[in-house]
Amino acid sequence: MAYLPIETPLTRAFGLRAPIVSAPMAFAGGGRLAAEVSRAGGLGFIGGGYGDGDWIEDQWKLAGDAAVGVGFITWRLAERPELLDRALARGPRAVFLSFGDLAPFADKVKAAGVPLVAQIQTLAAAREALAAGADVVVVQGAEAGGHGSGRATLTLVPEVVDLVAGRALVLAAGGIADGRGLAAALMLGADGVNVGTRFWASREALVAGAQHDAALAANGDATVRSSLPDMARGFDWPGDWNVRTLRNNWIRRWEGEPEGPVSDTARAEYARGVAAGDPEVAPAIVGETVGLIHEILPAEDIVTRMMREAREAMSRW
Amino acid sequence: MAYLPIETPLTRAFGLRAPIVSAPMAFAGGGRLAAEVSRAGGLGFIGGGYGDGDWIEDQWKLAGDAAVGVGFITWRLAERPELLDRALARGPRAVFLSFGDLAPFADKVKAAGVPLVAQIQTLAAAREALAAGADVVVVQGAEAGGHGSGRATLTLVPEVVDLVAGRALVLAAGGIADGRGLAAALMLGADGVNVGTRFWASREALVAGAQHDAALAANGDATVRSSLPDMARGFDWPGDWNVRTLRNNWIRRWEGEPEGPVSDTARAEYARGVAAGDPEVAPAIVGETVGLIHEILPAEDIVTRMMREAREAMSRW
Repeated sequence: MAYLPIETPLTRAFGLRAPIVSAPMAFAGGGRLAAEVSRAGGLGFIGGGYGDGDWIEDQWKLAGDAAVGVGFITWRLAERPELLDRALARGPRAVFLSFGDLAPFADKVKAAGVPLVAQIQTLAAAREALAAGADVVVVQGAEAGGHGSGRATLTLVPEVVDLVAGRALVLAAGGIADGRGLAAALMLGADGVNVGTRFWASREALVAGAQHDAALAANGDATVRSSLPDMARGFDWPGDWNVRTLRNNWIRRWEGEPEGPVSDTARAEYARGVAAGDPEVAPAIVGETVGLIHEILPAEDIVTRMMREAREAMSRW
Repeated sequence: MAYLPIETPLTRAFGLRAPIVSAPMAFAGGGRLAAEVSRAGGLGFIGGGYGDGDWIEDQWKLAGDAAVGVGFITWRLAERPELLDRALARGPRAVFLSFGDLAPFADKVKAAGVPLVAQIQTLAAAREALAAGADVVVVQGAEAGGHGSGRATLTLVPEVVDLVAGRALVLAAGGIADGRGLAAALMLGADGVNVGTRFWASREALVAGAQHDAALAANGDATVRSSLPDMARGFDWPGDWNVRTLRNNWIRRWEGEPEGPVSDTARAEYARGVAAGDPEVAPAIVGETVGLIHEILPAEDIVTRMMREAREAMSRW
């Protein structure tokens, strides 16, 4: 499959054919997915997530010679700062930091000559990212799957575009799963898109089949933001961030319980659900775009389709 | 000021030059605003809101001979169904129903030969609107000002476009205040946009100057959804709907109070704030796009600017 490139400041800066970046999804976004996205003309990211150094090393090997980046959860990286050194030694195409104060890491990334990508959820955080020297600001709306917070992509992207005023590249994240969303993001002034859920629903994602099936059966009304999975996993997320997932039976059961799933029994049940890939216990970590996704595809096909659809949407006007 | 028209199925159906509709904002959206939007080439709506029949009559007079529609809060209209008869007797360009079961009113509107516009916030509600025979489905995301609920415009619009599959027109609502947002909505497959906050910040809107000033000073991080204003006004809103406003001192004070502002004293204080237009008591009812709005403009200029900006955004690709 082939497509006509779309040129933006992002594609020029990184030598891409598609202004499409894969989100560094913890657990789901490994080296194979990142490599396929980069080979398809976009820019793939390994999800360094909660920081298992050996797992990240394995994913670098799976990425082979593809030019991929690596992402970290910033507040977690602060507990294991050596992971950044190990990542930089790999020569990543970029380092993607989300959720936390990036200032302690920014200089090291930039001193290594590696582009710094900073994901933000508010205008205030966009200001901080600029002050820290981010080369790329990823503007993530609450419709995104996984962790995030309150603003919407549709309003926050143009507001950050105006704030940034060309001092950094801007990517739209949250709510983009097809070429219509890519075209919409470009109209808002973004230089490209950061895509999570659509790549979560790829063949290369490290996601159990039953999780994929649950997502394909759901529409976009079926997701919810909560802190319940983090409570059950014992992840002490700071700030206003919580996690968007399908609202499965497990979520429904715990929504009304003030204490939350923090007992040993509750945590063990959740851990078993994660290990088994059981979508009725551990909910699929997807965004509202789940309602736009109807099949699991190779990452290359996802990039190709998005590019063709975006061009079609734009050529109509 | 002039602009080149943009033609969509909406503009063809209603004979417009701009695929822009003004939201029927309760209290703020009177006859002058609706008339100016229609005269500028869009389609203006009088906000019938909570249902004061004499107020609505006055607004019809202010609209003069402009072709405007009228909107109602559906659950409130169910308590005063005669208002629909009075509105239909005025020959509205369309009837716009939001928030509640439109089935009891749909047949009467359609029997009068008047287009039925149904605003929805979920995919499930879009199905109901189609089943009731809506001619236009307004897809409203949570980023909108005023009443709404959880889904985001960016994901819900394309999902509803796919559901509707040409059986009705689709408008995007929530998060659209400039031509970038209009262009983005068209890329998502919408036939046009329904704009609230940007017209709330117009010269013709029935909004106190201090409220406008508070909005101009705010960025998009400064809004919040809550039920506090409804509690203070004694409006018993059903369902999951709540109201997005600026998060002012009054909101901050009551956020932590479990009982809410329902005492006679609290309600009297709020009513005084509304009457005085005091933005530190009665918060400005605006959406996240408040961060994209930097001046109060005549409605005609808003339409013209949005059209020029949209064309510029689209012509770049």
